[in-house]
Amino acid sequence: MNQNNKYNFIDRHLGYSKKTSDSILSYLGYKSEDEFIKKVIPSSIFEKDLDKKLKLSHSFTTEEEALEKLEEIFCEIKPQKSFMGQGYTNSYLPSVIKNNFIQDPVWYSSYTPYQAEISQGRLELLYLFQTMIAELTDLPVANSSMLDEGTCGAEALTLCFNHYLETERIKDPSCASKKFFISSSVYPHIIGVIKHRASMRSIGVEVGDESLINPSNYFGVLLQNPGRYGDIKDYTEVIKNIKEKNPTCLVSLTSDLLSLTIIKSPGSMGADICFGTTRQFGMGLGLGGPAAAFFAVREDLLRKIPGRLVGKSIDAMGKTRFRLALQTREQHIRREKASSNLCTAQVLTACVSLLYFMYHGKTGVIQIAKRVNNLTQKLFLLLKEQGLTPINSSFFDTLFYKLDSTTTNSIQNKEKELGISLYIESDKKTKDILVGITLDETTTEKDLTNLVKLFSSSIPNSIPEVSNLSIPDSLKREDNFLTQDIFNTYTTELKFSRFINQLSNKDFSLVNTMIPLGSCTMKLNPSFTLSYILDPRIRNAHPYESFSNIKGALKLLEELNQDLCTLLGFDKFVFSPLSGASGEACGLAIIKAYLRDKKIDRNICLIPASAHGTNPASATCIGYQVVVVKCDDKGNISVDDLKEKLEKYKDQVATMMITYPSTHGVFEQKIKDICNLLHDNKVLVYMDGANFNAQLGLTRPGLYGADVCHINLHKSFSLPHGGGGPGVGPVGVRSFLIPYLPSNSIVDSLCYDSTTNTITEVFKEEDIYPKTCGAVSSAPWGNFSFLSIAWLYINAMGVSGLKQASIRAILSANYISKKLANYYPTLYTGETGLVAHECILDLSKFKKEYGVTEDDVAKRLMDYGFHAPTMSFPVHSTLMVEPTESEPIEELDRFCDSMIKIKQEIIDIKEKSLDPKNNLLKNAPHPMEMLSNWDKPYSIKEACFPMDQYQTKAWPFSARIDNTYGDRNLKLKD
Amino acid sequence: MNQNNKYNFIDRHLGYSKKTSDSILSYLGYKSEDEFIKKVIPSSIFEKDLDKKLKLSHSFTTEEEALEKLEEIFCEIKPQKSFMGQGYTNSYLPSVIKNNFIQDPVWYSSYTPYQAEISQGRLELLYLFQTMIAELTDLPVANSSMLDEGTCGAEALTLCFNHYLETERIKDPSCASKKFFISSSVYPHIIGVIKHRASMRSIGVEVGDESLINPSNYFGVLLQNPGRYGDIKDYTEVIKNIKEKNPTCLVSLTSDLLSLTIIKSPGSMGADICFGTTRQFGMGLGLGGPAAAFFAVREDLLRKIPGRLVGKSIDAMGKTRFRLALQTREQHIRREKASSNLCTAQVLTACVSLLYFMYHGKTGVIQIAKRVNNLTQKLFLLLKEQGLTPINSSFFDTLFYKLDSTTTNSIQNKEKELGISLYIESDKKTKDILVGITLDETTTEKDLTNLVKLFSSSIPNSIPEVSNLSIPDSLKREDNFLTQDIFNTYTTELKFSRFINQLSNKDFSLVNTMIPLGSCTMKLNPSFTLSYILDPRIRNAHPYESFSNIKGALKLLEELNQDLCTLLGFDKFVFSPLSGASGEACGLAIIKAYLRDKKIDRNICLIPASAHGTNPASATCIGYQVVVVKCDDKGNISVDDLKEKLEKYKDQVATMMITYPSTHGVFEQKIKDICNLLHDNKVLVYMDGANFNAQLGLTRPGLYGADVCHINLHKSFSLPHGGGGPGVGPVGVRSFLIPYLPSNSIVDSLCYDSTTNTITEVFKEEDIYPKTCGAVSSAPWGNFSFLSIAWLYINAMGVSGLKQASIRAILSANYISKKLANYYPTLYTGETGLVAHECILDLSKFKKEYGVTEDDVAKRLMDYGFHAPTMSFPVHSTLMVEPTESEPIEELDRFCDSMIKIKQEIIDIKEKSLDPKNNLLKNAPHPMEMLSNWDKPYSIKEACFPMDQYQTKAWPFSARIDNTYGDRNLKLKD
Repeated sequence: MNQNNKYNFIDRHLGYSKKTSDSILSYLGYKSEDEFIKKVIPSSIFEKDLDKKLKLSHSFTTEEEALEKLEEIFCEIKPQKSFMGQGYTNSYLPSVIKNNFIQDPVWYSSYTPYQAEISQGRLELLYLFQTMIAELTDLPVANSSMLDEGTCGAEALTLCFNHYLETERIKDPSCASKKFFISSSVYPHIIGVIKHRASMRSIGVEVGDESLINPSNYFGVLLQNPGRYGDIKDYTEVIKNIKEKNPTCLVSLTSDLLSLTIIKSPGSMGADICFGTTRQFGMGLGLGGPAAAFFAVREDLLRKIPGRLVGKSIDAMGKTRFRLALQTREQHIRREKASSNLCTAQVLTACVSLLYFMYHGKTGVIQIAKRVNNLTQKLFLLLKEQGLTPINSSFFDTLFYKLDSTTTNSIQNKEKELGISLYIESDKKTKDILVGITLDETTTEKDLTNLVKLFSSSIPNSIPEVSNLSIPDSLKREDNFLTQDIFNTYTTELKFSRFINQLSNKDFSLVNTMIPLGSCTMKLNPSFTLSYILDPRIRNAHPYESFSNIKGALKLLEELNQDLCTLLGFDKFVFSPLSGASGEACGLAIIKAYLRDKKIDRNICLIPASAHGTNPASATCIGYQVVVVKCDDKGNISVDDLKEKLEKYKDQVATMMITYPSTHGVFEQKIKDICNLLHDNKVLVYMDGANFNAQLGLTRPGLYGADVCHINLHKSFSLPHGGGGPGVGPVGVRSFLIPYLPSNSIVDSLCYDSTTNTITEVFKEEDIYPKTCGAVSSAPWGNFSFLSIAWLYINAMGVSGLKQASIRAILSANYISKKLANYYPTLYTGETGLVAHECILDLSKFKKEYGVTEDDVAKRLMDYGFHAPTMSFPVHSTLMVEPTESEPIEELDRFCDSMIKIKQEIIDIKEKSLDPKNNLLKNAPHPMEMLSNWDKPYSIKEACFPMDQYQTKAWPFSARIDNTYGDRNLKLKD
Repeated sequence: MNQNNKYNFIDRHLGYSKKTSDSILSYLGYKSEDEFIKKVIPSSIFEKDLDKKLKLSHSFTTEEEALEKLEEIFCEIKPQKSFMGQGYTNSYLPSVIKNNFIQDPVWYSSYTPYQAEISQGRLELLYLFQTMIAELTDLPVANSSMLDEGTCGAEALTLCFNHYLETERIKDPSCASKKFFISSSVYPHIIGVIKHRASMRSIGVEVGDESLINPSNYFGVLLQNPGRYGDIKDYTEVIKNIKEKNPTCLVSLTSDLLSLTIIKSPGSMGADICFGTTRQFGMGLGLGGPAAAFFAVREDLLRKIPGRLVGKSIDAMGKTRFRLALQTREQHIRREKASSNLCTAQVLTACVSLLYFMYHGKTGVIQIAKRVNNLTQKLFLLLKEQGLTPINSSFFDTLFYKLDSTTTNSIQNKEKELGISLYIESDKKTKDILVGITLDETTTEKDLTNLVKLFSSSIPNSIPEVSNLSIPDSLKREDNFLTQDIFNTYTTELKFSRFINQLSNKDFSLVNTMIPLGSCTMKLNPSFTLSYILDPRIRNAHPYESFSNIKGALKLLEELNQDLCTLLGFDKFVFSPLSGASGEACGLAIIKAYLRDKKIDRNICLIPASAHGTNPASATCIGYQVVVVKCDDKGNISVDDLKEKLEKYKDQVATMMITYPSTHGVFEQKIKDICNLLHDNKVLVYMDGANFNAQLGLTRPGLYGADVCHINLHKSFSLPHGGGGPGVGPVGVRSFLIPYLPSNSIVDSLCYDSTTNTITEVFKEEDIYPKTCGAVSSAPWGNFSFLSIAWLYINAMGVSGLKQASIRAILSANYISKKLANYYPTLYTGETGLVAHECILDLSKFKKEYGVTEDDVAKRLMDYGFHAPTMSFPVHSTLMVEPTESEPIEELDRFCDSMIKIKQEIIDIKEKSLDPKNNLLKNAPHPMEMLSNWDKPYSIKEACFPMDQYQTKAWPFSARIDNTYGDRNLKLKD
C-alpha cells in the first residue's frame, strides 16, 4: 500500500493492468517489458530510465491534485471586461450547448467524419453550418469551417494567386508580376498571417489605403467590412470598379458574422470570397482560441475552395444522407499536388456556432445584432454629450476616438479601477492616439455608464433611448435569408436538447467503441482534463489582455513549454499552430527563415513515401520544392535512394521531413544514421512528431537528430479530437532556430519567467524580432483555451506514466498484429518482426480471391459496433489499426474476434458460392431502417447481431453511402 | 424589439409560441387565454394580474443574468476545510461521474423506474447498489436507498415498533409499554429525527449510556459504530446479551460505509438492521445534502424494510431483467395501510455512490479507507508529541480531545487563520470541552501539519511513518465481500465511461420523449439551472460551518423563502423535508405540534378519495387517525360526505389534506367553500401542493384557505426528477404556525436578514424553540445543494413566466383531452368541461370490449418511443396524462397521433379477429433483441416503426417483464 496515494491516475488512463500486460508479453514471447521494448526501438536511440532522469513541472498522482494546482494557477487570471474588439468580441454560450454538446463525450471524442454511415449526426450539423454561412455571406458555397481568420486570409491569398496563375496561364510562379492588395482597414492579425504566407512563397503583398489602388496591379484584393476602425461601407462600387479594370482579380471581404444579419451581404456587394471568425456565435474570447472560422466563395470557385465540404448523397436504400464531398481535394489524397494544407476543419467549435444560431433562431440572432448596434448608438450619444465625436462616420459595434496623450493616460488609469479595457493604438508617424471601443452580446447598460466614466468624471443622468438602427438604409440587409424551418424551430430548450440527442445517436464515438484508426490515435480523453476549457476566466479574456492580468495563463504556457522541451529534448516550443498540419507548415517556415537569414539558398524538401499525408502539402505551402524519397520493400526509407537524391540535388536540399515511427507502423532501425547523413549534408532534419506518442518516455527526437519537430497535442497528450478539431500543433526547435520562431503582430508568448514569477510586457514588433518567420495564426497562443488539457494530462501522467502509455500502445498493436496474423497478415514489421504503435493489415489479395475490398470490411465492422480502422492509407488495400494505450484488453479481443468472424464471412462467400453482390459484406452496414423491410438472403441476427451484442448494440444510422452519386449531384447547402 | 433584452428565458422554457397557444385556444373554442383560464379556475380563488402585483427577489430576463447574480451571491460562501465530521465527511467526486453521469440529462431527467422495460439502466445500477450495501453491511437485504440517515433512524424506529406490536400481539399501540433505546454515541442529528417521529406517534424513546441498559425495557436498540466520539467497538457481545434477555428486541446499528471496508461488519456482530449515509462515496458535504442513505436488514425482516427494492425477474423472451420488487409495499398502493411514507429513494445520488465504488473498485475503496486510518494514526502520533491523548481509545477516522477553555479559544482563533474547522462541543453539566477531528478522503499530509499548528506553535519536523492499521485484529474485517467481477472491472476510465453509456442507452428520459406522467410533472429541467449543484463552495461546506462563512447560502435560502411566500401567500417556508412525501409528514407534524401546544385534542386527518397516494401514509406516520372523505361521480370532494364526517367526528378532526387541483385533474369549484367549512369547524386546512404548478401565478393557497402547504420543487420549480430523487419538499405555513416549524438539533435556517445583509449565529436548542415539532431530517437545510435550481428557475421565469407556465400546462392538457376525446374519453372534467393540468383517459371498457388493458397500451407506447402515462392512478383502468408547459406542440401531436394509431390497432384485434394473446398490444414492447428471431404474426415495421420513426427511434431495452415471477423468485442482490 502506498500510504500517500489513494489511487493513481495512470491506472485510470491505461487500458489494462500490469498482470494483463505481462500475459500479453508472454503471448508475444517476451519475459519483460524491457526485453520487449528493446526489440521494438533501435538501441541507437533508446534512452533507458528516462522516467527517472526527466523532471516535469509537477508530479501529481491523482486528478484532484492536478485540478487543485491548476485552480491555483488560474486564480492568477483576472481579465478585465474587454471592449478591445479587433475581431475578438464576446458572446454568451447557452448552458444547454455547453452541457449537452461540448461537454458530452459523444461529441468531443468522435473522429473526423470520414466514415459517413456512423457520422450522420455531426455531418448534418456541418452541412447546416455550411448553409448558415452561405446564406449569411450570400455566397453559394461555404466550407465546413477553417482554423481561424488569419489562416483564412492566407488561404484566400493562395486561392487568388492560383486563380491568377491559371487564368493568366503562368507556369512559373516566380514569373508572377501582380501582387495581393490588403486594405489597411483589415485587422493586423489577419494581415500578419497573410504576409507570413506570402513571404514564404515569395508572393508580393501590399497594404494600403483602398481608395488609392490601381486594380490592374493586383491579382487579388482583400477588404474588410465593418473596417477595423469601425466604419461600415457599401463596397459594391469599389468591387465593380476593380472587376471592370481587372476581370481576373478576385476580391475577398473579411466580415463580421453578427453584423451580416443586418448589414448588406458580401455576396450582394459582388465579393468573390468572404471569410471570418465565428467566435461571436458562442465560443467567446478564450485568450484567442479556439473558434472556428468560415470561408465562402462564389459558385465558380467551388473546386478551389480550401477546407472540407459536406454534401448530400444517397445510401444503398436510396435515402438522403450526408458525407464529405469532393474528398479528392484533400491534401492527404492529393499529396504532392496539394496547394493547401488546411483541409482540416474545426468541427466541434463550428458546430457550437451553428447550434448557437439554431438556439436563438434567425430572429433571435438578428435581435442580438440589433441590440449591439443599439447599445453602440447609445454610447455614441453619451460620449457626444461629453463632447466626443468618433473618427468613424458609420458604425455597427465599434467607435474609435482620436485622443491626446493626457486623456489617454487618464483613461488607462481608470480602466483598472473599473475593470474594463479599451483598445489603444498610437500611430508611430503621426503620434496620434486612437482609442477603440467595441461592444458585443455581453455588453449591458451598466457597462455604458462605466465606459462614460472612463472619459468623464460625471455619470450620465440617463441612458438615451434609441429606436432605429444606425445602419444607413442603403446598407441594411434586405434579402430574406435562412428561412429554412430548421433555423427557426429549435428555440425552445426541450426541442433543442432532443435535437442534439437524436443527432448524437447517429454517431459512433469513443464511448461506444474503440476507434482503431491508425495514424490518428483515438485514445481516451480523460474527463477531468476538460474541466477548464470553458473556464470563464479564460473565456472572457481578450488575447490582448494586459499580461499582468493573465499571469496564470502565461505560467501555464511556460510550464507546458518547459515540459515539452524536457520530453522531446528541444530548447523551445511555440503553441500558435492550430493543428498538426499547421504545425508542419510552421516548422518548415522556421527552417526557411533560418536559411534565408543565413543566406543559404536551398529549397528542396525531401519527403519519404512513408510520410504523413499532409507533409507534401505543407512543404508546397511554404514554397519548397518537394522531392520524394523511396521506401524499400519493408516500408523503410531507402537509404540508397536518399543518398542518390542528396547527391542529385546537392546543395539544394533544405530539409527532410521524417515521420517517426513511420506511417508504415515501424520504428526504422536506421533513423539515427539517416539523421547523421542529413546533417553531414547540411540538411536540417524536420521530424513529423505526429507519432511521437509511441516515443514518449523512451527516446527524445531533439537528442537523436531532429532540428525541428511538431507534435499534435491530440495524439500525444489526449486532447479530444472533437470530430475533427480544434487541434493544437506545437512546434519545438533546437536553440539555433529560436530567433526564427513565429511572431505575432501583437504580442509574444514567452514573457513569463518561472524562476522569478515575473512577467514582461513585450509588444512584438518586427524590429524587436527581425528574424521571425512571421505569424502562423491570428491569436498569440493559438487555441489557448485547450492547452490546460495537455498540462493536466502531462503532469498527472508524469514521465513514468507517459512511458508506460507508449509501451502499452506498442504492446497492444503487436498483440492485435499477432492475433490477426493468420487472417489478416501485417504488411510491414521491423527487423525483429514487431510493429510500433500501429499495424497495417494487408487485404490486397481479398479482392481477387473473394471479391471483397477493405472498404467492405470497414463497413461490415460497423455492424459489429466498431469504428473502422484507417483505410488504404498509407498503402492501398490495407487497414491500419492503432489500438492506443487506453483500450482495455476486452475491447482488443472483441475487435480481433470480430475481424476473425468477418474473415469467415468472407471465406463463406467463396466457399458457399454466395451472391457476390448481395452478401453480408457488400450490403454492410445494415442500419435499423433496413429491418422494416428485410429482403436479404441472410438473417437479421447474422447481419445486425453477429456477436449477440444486444446489450451494447450501436446502430450505424445509414446504409452504405454512394460517394460518386454525391459528387455528381453536388449539394452543399439547403 | 425590446431594446434591453436579447431574448427571454421564458420562451426557452415554454414549449410553444404565443401563436401556437392562440391556435390551441381557438381549437378549444376560446378567444383568449383570459377567457379560457377563467373557465378553468373557480372565480372564487382566481386572482387577476398576480404577475403585476407580486414582486420576487430578482427579475432576470436571461439565464446569463441569473447566473451572474448567483455567482455574486455564491462569492459570499467561503467554507473552511472541515474536520468536523459527525457523519459529514468529504470525498472526491471523480470527474467522469460528474460529467458523464450527474450532468447528463439522460440520468437526471429520467423518472422513477416504474416502467421497467425502459428503465433497465438505472434499475441495474440500483440493483448493484443493493448488492454493494448488503455486502458491506453483511446483511442479506438492502433497499435501493433512502432519503438520509436521520429519516433512516425514524424508519428503524417504526420497523422495530411494528415488529414489537406484531410479535407481542399488541393491537392498540397506545398500550405499548416498551421503549426505543438510543445509545448516546449516536449522532445528535439522527437522534433528533428519531425523537421527532417518536414524539409524533407517542412512542417512548430513551437516550443513554449503552453499557447501562436493561434490554427487557426496550423493543429496539440503536447503536453506532464507529461512535460519535470516534471509538470503534465489537458489538457482538452487547447484541448477544440483548437478544438473550429480550429475543423480540431488534438491534440497529448505524455505521460508516467507508469504515465497513476494513472493520468487522454489522451483520457479523449480529445486528438486525444497519443504516447510514453514502455521502463519503462521492457526494461530499453540500452543506448537508443531498446524499442517499442506505438501509439493510436481516432476511426475515425483508417484508418490513422501508424503501424501494429492485429485484431480478424475466421478460417475455425469458431474459433476466430488473424491476421494482414487492411494489405492493409502496405507500401509494397501500394507502391507509401504509406505515411509512418513505418509499422514495434517492436514485441519482445512490447511483453516484455505487459508481464511486465501481470506479475505485473494491481494492481502491479499501485503499482509501486504509489511507484515512493511516492519516488518523499519524495525527494521533503528532498530537501525542504535543502531549495530547484522545479520549477515544480506538479510532477509525476520528480523534476526540478533552481541552480547557483557554486551549479551545486559542484553537478557535487559529482556525480562521488556517482556514480549517474542528468540531467543538461543550458539556453543559461538566463544562468539559470536547474537540473532535475527523479525517476523510480529501485529507492530505499538509492538512496534518495545519492541524498540529492549531494545537501548538511548533511545526512538526516530519510526518511519522505508519505501516499498520489502528484497528484491533479482532475488529478487522476478515470476510471476503464484493468479489463479484462487476465491482472490480470498471476501474479504467474508458471502460467505466462505456459502461455508463451502455446503461444510458437502456433508459428513456426527457431527451428522448415526453414523459406524460399525470401527477408527476416531468417538465424540462433547464440546463442552466443545474450550473451550481456541484459548486465546490457548497460541496466542501460542512452543515455546521460557521454562518459567517456561508452568508451567500443563507441569503439564497432567505430569498427563496421570501419568493415562495410571495407566490403561495404564506408567511414562512422551511426546506428541510427531503421529498414531497417528507414535506407532507412535516406539515402534518407542524399541525400536531400546534394542537398539542394549544392543548387541543383532535387527532383525525380527513383525506379525500382523490388525494395523492402518499397522503394516508404521511398521516399514519405522524400518528393521525385517517378518515376518508368520498368523492362524487365527477371526482369532486363530496361536500355532503365531508359535512357528514365533520358531524360524525365532531371536535376530533384536526386537519383535512386536500390536493388541489385534485389528482382527478380538476379544479374543484367548491374549494373555497370547503376551506371555509373546515375553518368553521376549527379544522386546519392542509394543502398538498404537489399540483401547485397548475396554480402558480393564478391563485395563492395561503390566501384562499390553506394553513399549511407543502410543495415539490421538482414539480413546481423544475428540479430534475433524477430517476427518483433527490427531492425537496418545502413546507409553507401561515404566521400562527411559525413557532411549530421543524427545528434541527444544531442550527436554525432563518438567520439571514436581507434588509441589513447581516447574519445571526443561532444554535437552536429546545429551550430557544420550545414549540418546534422537531427535526424532520438530518441536515439543517435538507438537500441544500439543489436549492439553487429553484432559485434560478423562479427568478428567471418571474411571476409572469410562472403564470404563463401554469396556463400552458392547463392548455396543453385540455388540447390532449379534446384531441383524444373520440378515442379515449377523459374521465373527469370540471363543470365547464375542462380539465386542469392533467387528464385521466378512461380505458375501463377496453378490457371487456377488446381484451386489452391500460398496461398493454402503456407498453405499446414504448414501441412508439414514448414513456407511458401514469397507469391506474388514481382510478383503475385509466391513463393519466400530464403534458406540462414545456412540451412542444409537435410532441403533443405525436403523442395524440400515436395514441390514435394504437386505438386502431386495438380495434383491429376485434375487427380482424386477431389472436387475442399474440398481437401488437399484448407482445409490446418489442425490444431490439426480438428482431433476431422474428416470429410474430405482424411485421417488424408494424411492431417497431409504426410511425416510421427511424430518425428518432429509442428502443425499449426489454420485452414485457413478468412482475409476478420476480416477486415469487425474489432476488435482490448478486
